[in-house]
Amino acid sequence: MTNWKTSISSSGKDARVRGESLEKVMDMDFSDAIFLTLKGEKPNKKESEMFKVILSSCIDHGVGNPSTVAARTVQSGGNGMNTSVAAGIMALGDKHGGAIEEAMRLIQSKRTPEKIVREQLQKGEKVPGLGHKIYKDEDPRSSKMLKKADKLNLKGEFTEKILEIQEALEKEKTGLVLNVDGAIAGIMSDMGFEPELGKGFFIIARTPGLVAHVREEMDEPNFRRENGEYIGE
Amino acid sequence: MTNWKTSISSSGKDARVRGESLEKVMDMDFSDAIFLTLKGEKPNKKESEMFKVILSSCIDHGVGNPSTVAARTVQSGGNGMNTSVAAGIMALGDKHGGAIEEAMRLIQSKRTPEKIVREQLQKGEKVPGLGHKIYKDEDPRSSKMLKKADKLNLKGEFTEKILEIQEALEKEKTGLVLNVDGAIAGIMSDMGFEPELGKGFFIIARTPGLVAHVREEMDEPNFRRENGEYIGE
Amino acid sequence: MTNWKTSISSSGKDARVRGESLEKVMDMDFSDAIFLTLKGEKPNKKESEMFKVILSSCIDHGVGNPSTVAARTVQSGGNGMNTSVAAGIMALGDKHGGAIEEAMRLIQSKRTPEKIVREQLQKGEKVPGLGHKIYKDEDPRSSKMLKKADKLNLKGEFTEKILEIQEALEKEKTGLVLNVDGAIAGIMSDMGFEPELGKGFFIIARTPGLVAHVREEMDEPNFRRENGEYIGE
Amino acid sequence: MTNWKTSISSSGKDARVRGESLEKVMDMDFSDAIFLTLKGEKPNKKESEMFKVILSSCIDHGVGNPSTVAARTVQSGGNGMNTSVAAGIMALGDKHGGAIEEAMRLIQSKRTPEKIVREQLQKGEKVPGLGHKIYKDEDPRSSKMLKKADKLNLKGEFTEKILEIQEALEKEKTGLVLNVDGAIAGIMSDMGFEPELGKGFFIIARTPGLVAHVREEMDEPNFRRENGEYIGE
Repeated sequence: MTNWKTSISSSGKDARVRGESLEKVMDMDFSDAIFLTLKGEKPNKKESEMFKVILSSCIDHGVGNPSTVAARTVQSGGNGMNTSVAAGIMALGDKHGGAIEEAMRLIQSKRTPEKIVREQLQKGEKVPGLGHKIYKDEDPRSSKMLKKADKLNLKGEFTEKILEIQEALEKEKTGLVLNVDGAIAGIMSDMGFEPELGKGFFIIARTPGLVAHVREEMDEPNFRRENGEYIGE
Repeated sequence: MTNWKTSISSSGKDARVRGESLEKVMDMDFSDAIFLTLKGEKPNKKESEMFKVILSSCIDHGVGNPSTVAARTVQSGGNGMNTSVAAGIMALGDKHGGAIEEAMRLIQSKRTPEKIVREQLQKGEKVPGLGHKIYKDEDPRSSKMLKKADKLNLKGEFTEKILEIQEALEKEKTGLVLNVDGAIAGIMSDMGFEPELGKGFFIIARTPGLVAHVREEMDEPNFRRENGEYIGE
Repeated sequence: MTNWKTSISSSGKDARVRGESLEKVMDMDFSDAIFLTLKGEKPNKKESEMFKVILSSCIDHGVGNPSTVAARTVQSGGNGMNTSVAAGIMALGDKHGGAIEEAMRLIQSKRTPEKIVREQLQKGEKVPGLGHKIYKDEDPRSSKMLKKADKLNLKGEFTEKILEIQEALEKEKTGLVLNVDGAIAGIMSDMGFEPELGKGFFIIARTPGLVAHVREEMDEPNFRRENGEYIGE
Repeated sequence: MTNWKTSISSSGKDARVRGESLEKVMDMDFSDAIFLTLKGEKPNKKESEMFKVILSSCIDHGVGNPSTVAARTVQSGGNGMNTSVAAGIMALGDKHGGAIEEAMRLIQSKRTPEKIVREQLQKGEKVPGLGHKIYKDEDPRSSKMLKKADKLNLKGEFTEKILEIQEALEKEKTGLVLNVDGAIAGIMSDMGFEPELGKGFFIIARTPGLVAHVREEMDEPNFRRENGEYIGE
């Protein structure tokens, strides 16, 4: 039998979250409560303001991506909110929403920007956090995020490093702007978060969007049947 | 082939969420952005303040409940953040975190408080939103929530109705206080939300807790093996 | 802390499944081992032959249905076999693969065929197990199944009852043939299985198909992005 | 929009599985139908006999492992068969049921048995397929499986290679017998299956056990609450 121990929270009369009484947590902004739950300490005023921007920026992003399609498809098979939202979160694997975590891992490693770029190119892989389908000069959302971080004095070594990685990459391939994932990776690292939580931010931020999509799908009449083609014998 | 249409959000250069540009959504509090995403309109100042309390109150609640156990058990089998958090959300079925939705359904129905109590008792079922394992006189957290709703002038017919249900039940069975689920159900209904989203609030609010638990479990060395007893032949 | 007790199986030196030693189970046909695991007793020769037909008939059914789409979509987000197959199984909710269970529930109830038909029509619902998009005179697969059951002397009161339900329905609406779900529901009931396992058969039988689809999707290069249309403001 | 193409199966009047008509598939043993679905060709008589043993050997293994605990815990939160079984399958990650796939990958690589052993030991990792908690001289089930493979003339280069790996390891560490995962990995490789399907076999074989456990849990009265200890401040 295993022991279930946690330093995150307790229930009952003296219910606590990371040492704080649940009644006091109820007085916190939800994004501050998330910061506390993940990091074990409350954000200061600047971190609080920054963290909101990061969460809100990922709340939803159209209907055609794998997580939304998975959630809505599972709902259409006749399932409730919990099962359908879970299917959406499951779709958030290595290739979908994973760039924040990967970029955090790269910039928090000991390797220099030049070495990182060289190694990614040698492996034939993209540099996570750089490049955007539409924006070739500047991604207005990451610019907005960086400006905010700058104003709040939160831009530190990791945000600098991802910008240096972009410069180093620029010499090899042009037009790969810093995208939102890259900006988030830099700023979250500067606020002291580890890469292991990179996918977690994205899941937390996107869950409201998935809930809304599953609710919307409940009003669609039939179960989803896509055209399929049999190419076997 | 099915058509994927949505009124929730779009991606691309003019990315929007419920008609608002994503860049403006980035300036919103995360809980306000959630309100917008779910309801299709922004909260006013009072709703904004109330909604935060509701979300923060459910952020985590100890390690022994089914959703946390499921999430950590799945992680311990050698899985990533997305799969493990999804398993936790899956555990949030009818018997776990479902009281908000059920209570919303009851109070938004046409039936009178007396009829609701009578029917639940006849079916041998609890009245969702009432009763607490520990608190027999007053649940301090729902009292706090109601006081807040009162102060913000958000207490309306549905919150009244759940309090009337409690009074009606009091005549049959004493000591069943209004619990947090009941308070949330009343206030969310008064803010114009439908029961279909009741489970959704809880999922959104609890996901940060699940992410923290999965992260904590990553540092546990082995896969979880519980003692089991074979009682077959 | 909860007690984990089971009468299904044990592990270790004397590992058993439903009282049978695991080493002996290794000598059984896989479908016989499934029968034993679910029912707690081995099939006789006739039941064994019948059960195979039922399982094999559901093994896969094209690429466009929700379970296959969900499994492949989740794989395309960058996930492994277990997470992707699980997403497919999750899609098998009330509206997808649920007819076997529902039909078992109806025919194992005390209600007469006439009453069942009347009640379903009054509720505006289909009668599960009857009707087929393509076949209007006869579904060759359910005919084949019934012929087999007949030959094996396994056609009993429940298979008779679903045929009586079809006759009763015929008076109201023509062209609703006994489909495969209906045939399986009748025969499984006659072999002594309860409705609670109806969805379980289907999950067991379809899992190999889902595994094959997830494997096939691994060779597709990119993550799946469907066209979506934003119909909000 | 993506194209859904498959060489696995089709639906409709001429429904097929891997080129075979579904009506003919209904006449096949379920394990033969699985072989066909996964491999794209029917097993010969010897492969058919061998494949059954492999599937039946994994059908269930006690109540305390992560997949069973996850499935039953999710059911206890108030969920149906599909969601609960899916949670069990999700738990089958890299550390749980993953040895077959890993062992297949090792023996199908170009590396020699000696190199494989050296590399695993250098990385401080176990050699998948070797070692058993209880059996130190011989695992009777893998012996039974190998004997069967021998008798059926199916023991080929890959089964030989895992035995050579065991011999090479024996020089470094004694008492690490060939376990069931190792035997399955060798024989499945000799029957021409690729490692990508290793986890898939296990999922297919264990799903009936999970269905039985979820059914058993439905009769347990309450939702599962484990003891948890809060070790935070």
